[in-house]
Amino acid sequence: LSELSRLARLRQLFATTPAGGIVVGIGDDAAVLAQGAGSLVWTVDSAVEGVHFRREWATLRDIGWRSFMAAASDLAAMGATPRGALSSLILPESFTDAELDELAEGQADAAQALGTAVIGGNLSRGSELSITTSVLGETLRPILRSGARPGDAVALVGPLGMAAAGLEALKRGLVDPAVERASLHWRRPNALIGEGRTAAPIASAGIDLSDGLALDASRLAAESGVSIVLEEERLRAIGGQELADAARVLSLDPLELALGGGEDYSLLMTFAAGSVAAPFVEIGRCEAGSGVFLQTADRARRKLEPRGFDHFTP
Amino acid sequence: LSELSRLARLRQLFATTPAGGIVVGIGDDAAVLAQGAGSLVWTVDSAVEGVHFRREWATLRDIGWRSFMAAASDLAAMGATPRGALSSLILPESFTDAELDELAEGQADAAQALGTAVIGGNLSRGSELSITTSVLGETLRPILRSGARPGDAVALVGPLGMAAAGLEALKRGLVDPAVERASLHWRRPNALIGEGRTAAPIASAGIDLSDGLALDASRLAAESGVSIVLEEERLRAIGGQELADAARVLSLDPLELALGGGEDYSLLMTFAAGSVAAPFVEIGRCEAGSGVFLQTADRARRKLEPRGFDHFTP
Repeated sequence: LSELSRLARLRQLFATTPAGGIVVGIGDDAAVLAQGAGSLVWTVDSAVEGVHFRREWATLRDIGWRSFMAAASDLAAMGATPRGALSSLILPESFTDAELDELAEGQADAAQALGTAVIGGNLSRGSELSITTSVLGETLRPILRSGARPGDAVALVGPLGMAAAGLEALKRGLVDPAVERASLHWRRPNALIGEGRTAAPIASAGIDLSDGLALDASRLAAESGVSIVLEEERLRAIGGQELADAARVLSLDPLELALGGGEDYSLLMTFAAGSVAAPFVEIGRCEAGSGVFLQTADRARRKLEPRGFDHFTP
Repeated sequence: LSELSRLARLRQLFATTPAGGIVVGIGDDAAVLAQGAGSLVWTVDSAVEGVHFRREWATLRDIGWRSFMAAASDLAAMGATPRGALSSLILPESFTDAELDELAEGQADAAQALGTAVIGGNLSRGSELSITTSVLGETLRPILRSGARPGDAVALVGPLGMAAAGLEALKRGLVDPAVERASLHWRRPNALIGEGRTAAPIASAGIDLSDGLALDASRLAAESGVSIVLEEERLRAIGGQELADAARVLSLDPLELALGGGEDYSLLMTFAAGSVAAPFVEIGRCEAGSGVFLQTADRARRKLEPRGFDHFTP
């Protein structure tokens, strides 16, 4: 089964009588627990060597940074502010103390950049390096995937397709000024905590782009019971000259990178029409129906397959 | 470096200016965050195939159960009640959907047994099966490792040495009525949440026995700045005939199993003299100084090496 079907299966399996105060369980960016007047928002994410990263592509400091940001991005998607993080590391026997320092420094840097800290964790031995990060945060009003309504504007903040272009350049060992910034996007992504917090009081729904715009938009659309129409011209404008240059050097289509490229950790949010909060930029709208569509300037539409980065489908 | 030294190093590295409200960070059983009049208690723990378990020793349902209980036990040690758990699974490509169901059912069973639920998580591919569980709970008064004072009674609840005896029997493929219950202790340990909650209002310090009594007692002693004197006769009494029988069949010393055997997930707590709360049983006392000592009936003492299960020292 694909990761999506497996998650659906787990959602079913774990749907035993839950403990009190659980607002959102499996199926959103993070779990939500009622706490006083607000909510706790809580997530976990793993980065596995050979699957999510290779050490030829980035330093261990980069790997520590990006694994932390990937986890924290789930909180950004919910409009939450992190209160702390736990790090669970599985380290191969050959992993040196200097390597552990480098990895942990990257995690600490990322935590500090988001105004938080790693406050606990766990070390295990294993054959394969992996970094599992759990982040706990809070918000007065969590942004769920399920709140979008027909007529809402769809808006984005953050890069689009850049991390995928950068990863491709790193995989090819390509050194070219046109891909330098893209590679940096992949090695040093940012969880958009401040932007999520800005959206929290007014966004109707949100998700972070970890697996690509087409796939992540399809998840938001499915949870909200709407269809999403994305405007091609606006997507091209966000990618801009920088993505076009990187794509050209890589002989890739910038639009395909923008739609299918993962790990940008941008935020896709929906707002009532006319109420898009800066720095979010409108890229489309919600309609009745289901699925995700791309609309060209002459109003022709094509349905997008919800594909992107899925670790369980090769 | 050993796991202990590596954790000390990480503690130093992550000791950047922390976010507000962090009461306890790295170095206790779990992290503690101030929340209203009480505290959030939060932990993470990983179980890795080939390191923490082998599939010849237990079913996947057992493995799901025990990985959950091992994580939840950190909350028991702090006197906290779980509010929910996140599960991050790294699954080899060959892992089937039926196997995933079995594993998740064990996790769900364990969560339900503790009155809580798995409310989120993450799936990744990897070469090696691992289960990382983060558990979040709350308590009005967290029990720390650091609160023991000279004169306090040292008390225990739960089995001693049984899981280690059971694991040894499973490793040897030994089938004998004398080790059957011990094997069950290893395959199906229990996080003693209720017992931890009983101790929370009055215990001066606490830790759960994941790595063996000698090692875990030395951690509590070091964090509290006291020495701990354990009475041999009382330890033998807790192990009882059951441990003696299992040890005999395995040609092992029951006292060595009681002192060095890990994964019992019993709770070791200290209380003001004369105030040990049932069902805890007194097994020794705190004195000024450092280290852990074993005292025989004729009051002879020997210092115990803080050894036990340490994944980073072979």
